[in-house]
Amino acid sequence: MDEFSFIKSIKPRFYHHSSVQKGIGDDAAVFRPPSGMDMVTATDTMVEHVHFRLTTMEPYHLGYRVLAANLSDLAAMGSIPVFYLVSIVVPESWKDKQLRSVYNGMKEIADQYHMDLLGGDTVSGDRFVISVTVIGFVERDKSRYRRHARDGDVVFVTGTLGDSAFGLHLLTERSFSVEAQDHFINRHRMPTPRVWFSRKLKQLDRVCLNDISDGISSEANEIAEASGVDLHIDYSQLPMHPQLKKLSETNQKKFVLAGGEDFELIGTISEHNWSVVEEAARQTNTIVKKIGFVRRKVAAEGQVFLYENGKKQVLKKQGYIHLR
Amino acid sequence: MDEFSFIKSIKPRFYHHSSVQKGIGDDAAVFRPPSGMDMVTATDTMVEHVHFRLTTMEPYHLGYRVLAANLSDLAAMGSIPVFYLVSIVVPESWKDKQLRSVYNGMKEIADQYHMDLLGGDTVSGDRFVISVTVIGFVERDKSRYRRHARDGDVVFVTGTLGDSAFGLHLLTERSFSVEAQDHFINRHRMPTPRVWFSRKLKQLDRVCLNDISDGISSEANEIAEASGVDLHIDYSQLPMHPQLKKLSETNQKKFVLAGGEDFELIGTISEHNWSVVEEAARQTNTIVKKIGFVRRKVAAEGQVFLYENGKKQVLKKQGYIHLR
Repeated sequence: MDEFSFIKSIKPRFYHHSSVQKGIGDDAAVFRPPSGMDMVTATDTMVEHVHFRLTTMEPYHLGYRVLAANLSDLAAMGSIPVFYLVSIVVPESWKDKQLRSVYNGMKEIADQYHMDLLGGDTVSGDRFVISVTVIGFVERDKSRYRRHARDGDVVFVTGTLGDSAFGLHLLTERSFSVEAQDHFINRHRMPTPRVWFSRKLKQLDRVCLNDISDGISSEANEIAEASGVDLHIDYSQLPMHPQLKKLSETNQKKFVLAGGEDFELIGTISEHNWSVVEEAARQTNTIVKKIGFVRRKVAAEGQVFLYENGKKQVLKKQGYIHLR
Repeated sequence: MDEFSFIKSIKPRFYHHSSVQKGIGDDAAVFRPPSGMDMVTATDTMVEHVHFRLTTMEPYHLGYRVLAANLSDLAAMGSIPVFYLVSIVVPESWKDKQLRSVYNGMKEIADQYHMDLLGGDTVSGDRFVISVTVIGFVERDKSRYRRHARDGDVVFVTGTLGDSAFGLHLLTERSFSVEAQDHFINRHRMPTPRVWFSRKLKQLDRVCLNDISDGISSEANEIAEASGVDLHIDYSQLPMHPQLKKLSETNQKKFVLAGGEDFELIGTISEHNWSVVEEAARQTNTIVKKIGFVRRKVAAEGQVFLYENGKKQVLKKQGYIHLR
């Protein structure tokens, strides 16, 4: 199939958003931002043999997952996903059907959020690369920044941690006799960005959110650094799947603290708004758990402290634990 | 250099646009659209060994050129360039210095238009790939669509045609004794998107614009098709560099009609607004030339007719000329 026919075949038959003035089919797309809304934008790239292998992911999952990762960034800003633009480098050995599956995977998750495809580029190359840019809308001054944590806040996290990394581990080790293995594999291939949960917090003037793409160690430190506060986290409170509790301590920590790509949210909020978080969790059927609290920083830079069995340790970005 | 240090090093020290609420450094960037403006967005990708080779382009040119191509799309919509987001796949054999040159090339042209870098992703891979998404602003209902050509319009084009393709030809053939060769090579490596010219047409209610990225044959046909009209083009009026006039007829036509990546604009406008185009050209120091006119279509689909030495031929998208 030539490029023109392919573009025609993926061109949406209609657009969900009335803000679209011009979709695919001109030099660029045009949309009209609703009044009172800020625009949110992020980009994310996946490369074959770096971020994935076709032995652990089908083309369909690639599409699903790269857009899910982008949606997670929009969720972490408190915004409504609206548009996406796609660039794909596709090896000549690929069949049309495989390329179409990538677009189908994206469409599957895009439709869940009524997102419209606004543009893209499909070019040939040696190695599969997919790069997606998303655009979301958020009410003015309701963006959820990493710098918004305050002394006295509670720290919370959605979902369970380490599932995606454990799923990838099962796929690469080909150890397929673990209980609930489909759960883990699915969490790796088709993660759920916490868009609806984050949107339900809209009424709050302030909530700090960060999405967990590189493991909670990394993301908690980003909050501590950006907000200039210390985060105190109780290891025993970290939500994890029962199966992960059966692992050796070292492995468990590897997955739970440093396992990437869960696309859950870590956040902080003032104690008196905790009920709003609980209500948002209930309404969107999301697991949310308090895991610690925020205090004024004790050093020049904000840090993360991890409490476990009566010991207090500094939790570094890389997920390594350095005893004090 | 690790990814974090690199991101820090390319992070802008300030943003030109006060609409930026949050630049690089959170899960996503946030900006506030000015009232009365529509948003315009496009994406473009360049792959090593497909779109370029490092034997004909320096890393600096790669950055410059991919952003120029995107800016050309924004120019063809009549919009002001404002933001860009970048995804780069960089081979491990590349040096930090080379990667930095790519960003410097982008910054060089971005600064000319006061564009702000809003985000990006740099990942490693086998083959260099760069993908850029741009966002521009345009006054409501002033987007310049391909469907806006009307019976009676004049057809015009900016700059000279075929220069970029001829420049690439000189580089790949290593025939370095052509007069004005630097001009052609420069037009290939660092093309000038016609942003200012297109913005000077702002007062007009209607003008049809399309940027010449695949050769005028292709772009003229896109207008004819989208507007449902015929374009009649006089080959003798097509603007070309004197050096191209010295080529054989076959070669000249290859470059002028089908040579891609000039990033000039082809447009149509009602005859009585022609003086506005001339004034815009004068103010922005842009060559603009009338090359034909628009008439009602004579077949089911709009077509392009090329006149030469008293002969009238159908000009196809691919640049091939089929005798009637």
